[in-house]
Amino acid sequence: MNLTAQQIAEFDVQGYLFLPGCFSEEEVGVLRAEAEKIYQTERQEVWREKTGAPRTAFAAHTYNEAFRLLAHHPRLVEPLRQFFGEGVYVHQFKINAKAAFEGDVWQWHQDYGTWARDDGMPEPRAMNISVFLDEVMPINGPLMFIPKSHKHGTLAAGHDKQTTSYPLWTLDKETVTRLAAEGGIVAPTGRPGSVLMFHGNLVHASPPNITPYPRKIVYLTLCAVSNHITKFTRPEWIAHRDFTPIDPVADDALLRYARSYRVAAE
Amino acid sequence: MNLTAQQIAEFDVQGYLFLPGCFSEEEVGVLRAEAEKIYQTERQEVWREKTGAPRTAFAAHTYNEAFRLLAHHPRLVEPLRQFFGEGVYVHQFKINAKAAFEGDVWQWHQDYGTWARDDGMPEPRAMNISVFLDEVMPINGPLMFIPKSHKHGTLAAGHDKQTTSYPLWTLDKETVTRLAAEGGIVAPTGRPGSVLMFHGNLVHASPPNITPYPRKIVYLTLCAVSNHITKFTRPEWIAHRDFTPIDPVADDALLRYARSYRVAAE
Repeated sequence: MNLTAQQIAEFDVQGYLFLPGCFSEEEVGVLRAEAEKIYQTERQEVWREKTGAPRTAFAAHTYNEAFRLLAHHPRLVEPLRQFFGEGVYVHQFKINAKAAFEGDVWQWHQDYGTWARDDGMPEPRAMNISVFLDEVMPINGPLMFIPKSHKHGTLAAGHDKQTTSYPLWTLDKETVTRLAAEGGIVAPTGRPGSVLMFHGNLVHASPPNITPYPRKIVYLTLCAVSNHITKFTRPEWIAHRDFTPIDPVADDALLRYARSYRVAAE
Repeated sequence: MNLTAQQIAEFDVQGYLFLPGCFSEEEVGVLRAEAEKIYQTERQEVWREKTGAPRTAFAAHTYNEAFRLLAHHPRLVEPLRQFFGEGVYVHQFKINAKAAFEGDVWQWHQDYGTWARDDGMPEPRAMNISVFLDEVMPINGPLMFIPKSHKHGTLAAGHDKQTTSYPLWTLDKETVTRLAAEGGIVAPTGRPGSVLMFHGNLVHASPPNITPYPRKIVYLTLCAVSNHITKFTRPEWIAHRDFTPIDPVADDALLRYARSYRVAAE
């Protein structure tokens, strides 16, 4: 899958691209089922909210076949190779739960702020791709973006280790207010299988989820190979150190896996 | 202002009525400005979030002229006299701040659960009327309702004194999940001056506000005079003990006050 010139121009202006229906329900169904199983395990890669509910599961592409296929999927990998003009590798892979009733806030931040400060990533030539596993609604803790905020470079941030169970480099209220006055705030919503690609410097957040509707999203971070990280302060399963360019699987690989999985389950 | 037969039928089925544009921007502007002034005072009636941001201000109708006019406004009082077939009095009056960045959650609850347990109100013949002072958006902590949940009577609840700075009788996750599977969840949004009337047993909540946009809403609780409370466990400025039926002001009283206020300010 390649992006059109219009999509690339829109990305450049707004800082994100929303691609509804990128994966079919058949493809997403197997990911959703596997994610729930992973959250029930006691692996070190599964982080929990202060309440004990799952918050995020790291590196599932290294130990789960369905997520391995997703991390190598051409619908995600090809557009990023197109953006960066070179091969890309997996810098981070996480499945954020935003569990029903218990999913906590992710405060306002830029992803590249963390990749630069914690991992020594040279440039913002890496990007998060989010794949909706559940329906994302206005009420169940959607991702919020400040359009155009990626044009401001890497902003000053403080390292918040208190608010949630996950340490994060967060922006202050004055900065967020100023950027939102310029770009507004959007919260793209849609069916499972929808995809959001957003610039490493795009300011975003997500509120707690107080509804009975879970809101699982995969975040696949792909980095240009020549821009690989240089500081290894976080565990390898949080900030990967294998900089081999991804060799994508076939476009129907996840679908075929989903069909065999369903047969096996029956 | 009287409700139509269709509006009354809709209220009976859904448990709430949404009346966009009930007050003009001229009328709402003075209320918004006065609310901000009240939040800056150190009165006992102003409760704060754990962070210190304002959470709610009680009883402003007893010491502020603009809010006195709102509590006596025929657009709010007449429909309730119509519902209950008798005079109504002010049981509670609060201005909830849901401050930018700091406004915290109100968990899933029924208002009548508190009025019955804490105040000995005999029947759910009282109702909250919310008046939007700011624009209520999907992203700034809107009120969420479970339509039709008012048909289930007063549900079992636990007294949560921990989660926020305000103690509340809250429903458990299983109950909310079951009711939402039946009625869904709605979050009416709209311009300042919009009004929501909802049944005392309608299950509702509101999420934290992590945006730069404040979301102030007045909650005027009107109770049928013959249904007045019988237990005085909360301060008089939280659960009022003056059961005199409201004698409404003229329909243009708030507008005239807003105009004189503006002149005085210039």
